[in-house]
Amino acid sequence: MDEGLKRLRGFREIYPEEMSSRLKIFNIMRDVSRRFNFKEIDTPSLEPLELYKLKSGEEIVSQTFSFKDKGGRDVTLVPEITPTVARMVAQKKNMPKPIKWYSIPKLWRYEEPQSGRLREFYQYNADIFGIWTIEADAEVIALAQAILYHLGLGDKYIMRISDRTLIESILRRFDVKDVDMALRLIDRMEKIGEEIFIEEFGKITKEMDIMDFIRLKGDASTISKKLGGLIDDKYLKNIENLENYLKSYNYGNFIFDLSIVRGIAYYTGIVFEAHDVKGELRAILGGGRYDNVVSLFGGEKIPAVGFGMGDAVLEIIMKRENLWPSVDEKVDYFIAIQGDNRPFAIKISKIIREMGKVVEIDMGGKSLSNQLKTADRLGAKNVIIVGDEEKKYNIITLKNLETGEQVRVPIEKINEIVTK
Amino acid sequence: MDEGLKRLRGFREIYPEEMSSRLKIFNIMRDVSRRFNFKEIDTPSLEPLELYKLKSGEEIVSQTFSFKDKGGRDVTLVPEITPTVARMVAQKKNMPKPIKWYSIPKLWRYEEPQSGRLREFYQYNADIFGIWTIEADAEVIALAQAILYHLGLGDKYIMRISDRTLIESILRRFDVKDVDMALRLIDRMEKIGEEIFIEEFGKITKEMDIMDFIRLKGDASTISKKLGGLIDDKYLKNIENLENYLKSYNYGNFIFDLSIVRGIAYYTGIVFEAHDVKGELRAILGGGRYDNVVSLFGGEKIPAVGFGMGDAVLEIIMKRENLWPSVDEKVDYFIAIQGDNRPFAIKISKIIREMGKVVEIDMGGKSLSNQLKTADRLGAKNVIIVGDEEKKYNIITLKNLETGEQVRVPIEKINEIVTK
Repeated sequence: MDEGLKRLRGFREIYPEEMSSRLKIFNIMRDVSRRFNFKEIDTPSLEPLELYKLKSGEEIVSQTFSFKDKGGRDVTLVPEITPTVARMVAQKKNMPKPIKWYSIPKLWRYEEPQSGRLREFYQYNADIFGIWTIEADAEVIALAQAILYHLGLGDKYIMRISDRTLIESILRRFDVKDVDMALRLIDRMEKIGEEIFIEEFGKITKEMDIMDFIRLKGDASTISKKLGGLIDDKYLKNIENLENYLKSYNYGNFIFDLSIVRGIAYYTGIVFEAHDVKGELRAILGGGRYDNVVSLFGGEKIPAVGFGMGDAVLEIIMKRENLWPSVDEKVDYFIAIQGDNRPFAIKISKIIREMGKVVEIDMGGKSLSNQLKTADRLGAKNVIIVGDEEKKYNIITLKNLETGEQVRVPIEKINEIVTK
Repeated sequence: MDEGLKRLRGFREIYPEEMSSRLKIFNIMRDVSRRFNFKEIDTPSLEPLELYKLKSGEEIVSQTFSFKDKGGRDVTLVPEITPTVARMVAQKKNMPKPIKWYSIPKLWRYEEPQSGRLREFYQYNADIFGIWTIEADAEVIALAQAILYHLGLGDKYIMRISDRTLIESILRRFDVKDVDMALRLIDRMEKIGEEIFIEEFGKITKEMDIMDFIRLKGDASTISKKLGGLIDDKYLKNIENLENYLKSYNYGNFIFDLSIVRGIAYYTGIVFEAHDVKGELRAILGGGRYDNVVSLFGGEKIPAVGFGMGDAVLEIIMKRENLWPSVDEKVDYFIAIQGDNRPFAIKISKIIREMGKVVEIDMGGKSLSNQLKTADRLGAKNVIIVGDEEKKYNIITLKNLETGEQVRVPIEKINEIVTK
């Protein structure tokens, strides 16, 4: 094939077998969202590039598929949907709160494709708008955990939770002046390694005791023991409540881990990431609270908390753990045709399709034995043979390929046989 | 809001109510496809621009969102998926035929947005690969008709069918030299009007009797009566067979209409379009046979027939006919919390969500009467009240908002009450 006609790197063609697995996963996501009373929305795939300059930071803009459209406008394939969803909330005044929305859009990032990172991927997103307090953070994290639980991943990940306001209050306590720079460094701690991290962090503050706090991990009481008296109690009370709620939801493990800050600039409170317990993969999902985004679109300030989960890492971990669903939808009835009886066979196909069954009808004019081979290859549960005699007496010959049983049925009785 | 942050023209934000209708429609499309044994696939949203220069003709290329990516390559948001699907067939050798695939991608066209025409839209697509004969055309047209039937549009459209090979054979019979030009003119006949059409067509051929044939409409016998002896009988036999099969499928009306040629250059046989019976709208769907596309990707020639149906015109006609589904998913249980009992309330929410029900739990810390108002606004079928006494005795107070009945239930009996 001409090189110029090939699929672009980092993009996928999804054949039926793979697609049926993916649809099953989407259906689980949709079903769990429904139970939590989240409603599905849909968003544009192309947006003004300016939308992402707002608060997402330059790192995301540099990774977009952006271009000038034919009207000379800077536009981009959407790299994330938070700004769009926030705009949708901002521009429809008077929607009763809380608003609980989810979506499963395709997103695009111009990055080097590698394991778990594609240029085009699906991302499940869910958000709650309108609640300032930790109750919404808990509901959103529980939703994320419930989805992972229903995908079979209940014990394959650890949810790592932190709170930006708490971290910032520690940083201030240690007289860190450039809080943004410190957060960026903490975010990159695992990537750059301990040594470089300490060196770089030493440029921000001389009080290196702070390292013990940044690396703090454990349950709320561990955090409280270490930080009590050092920062305002309200931060500690907040994570105690969150722990209490998440234990009540009881959908999976979690740990407070103050090294989690999340790269994206707009988070303002709780942040969280789910990681493979084996530590091999990128984050499975990530999210947090972003109370300042909706107001960027004018009007009132509306608090928000949400998360996103791409399908690439999810696929890798599910396949590794043998949890990737294999969906093998068989043909219920294969209609084989002898002689010149297609119109009659088509009528039979319609009766059975209208009963909701999967019906394949031979289109190739092959010999009966070849048609039966096709039925076999398709894994058909039943074959219906339609020939001159069947047509003459208005009957079908029905063979159950699982039991081998063969019967002749008048067409007005097909109903009874098929529903059985 | 800053102009630069607004949604782009011709793109949609779909809020939950509208989305639930759309999902219902997609589910009908998926369910009918399943019954016909079509399998869902998924395709890239971005492709090399060259893919569309192949056979789609320049008109489609000029209407794309195309750009140079950061690697300097000419790429485009996909304006149609036929080339991609054909490539997917070509590059996976040895797939047993026939292949029956469908998909519901988003597509993009840089055209002036207007009624029934958006810059971003969903399009249902279905194709059969591997069958040379009219049996596959019939199955594909029947699928299109079955979908419209199950959307409630059974008598709101007319399927207009023609055959490019038949038209071309008439054109040759009348000594038309530039067949492509003639087809393009016929395609635009309705748009440019009778007078201009005759004038322009007069430049191609002097034999203006041809007009009677181009405007020919009716059933197969009407077409045969007029064309018998004039062109090869095989063309007439073909549409007779098609008529016979479609009558057997019996999913809706159709007519042969030789003025239908379809603009896209790659069709090689039967072409068809479904039109609003009231004649107010653009085509609801369109498709045809394209036997030369797969071989463009190297390797063997594999015949194909399929169609595409966008969601914009569909939405307009369904709304006009009051067929647009309204899906109002209610909250099954609203959990109202008194006092400091959130953890207990959360445990109740989990029990009921795990039974598959839609559960909303108050997150706002409002008064009980305000919580009950929220339950009412959400159309909740039941309210569960969780207070100190409930917590103490491990019970819930359950009020059925439809009957007004109120009971107290031990939590270990929630199962029995909820499934009821």
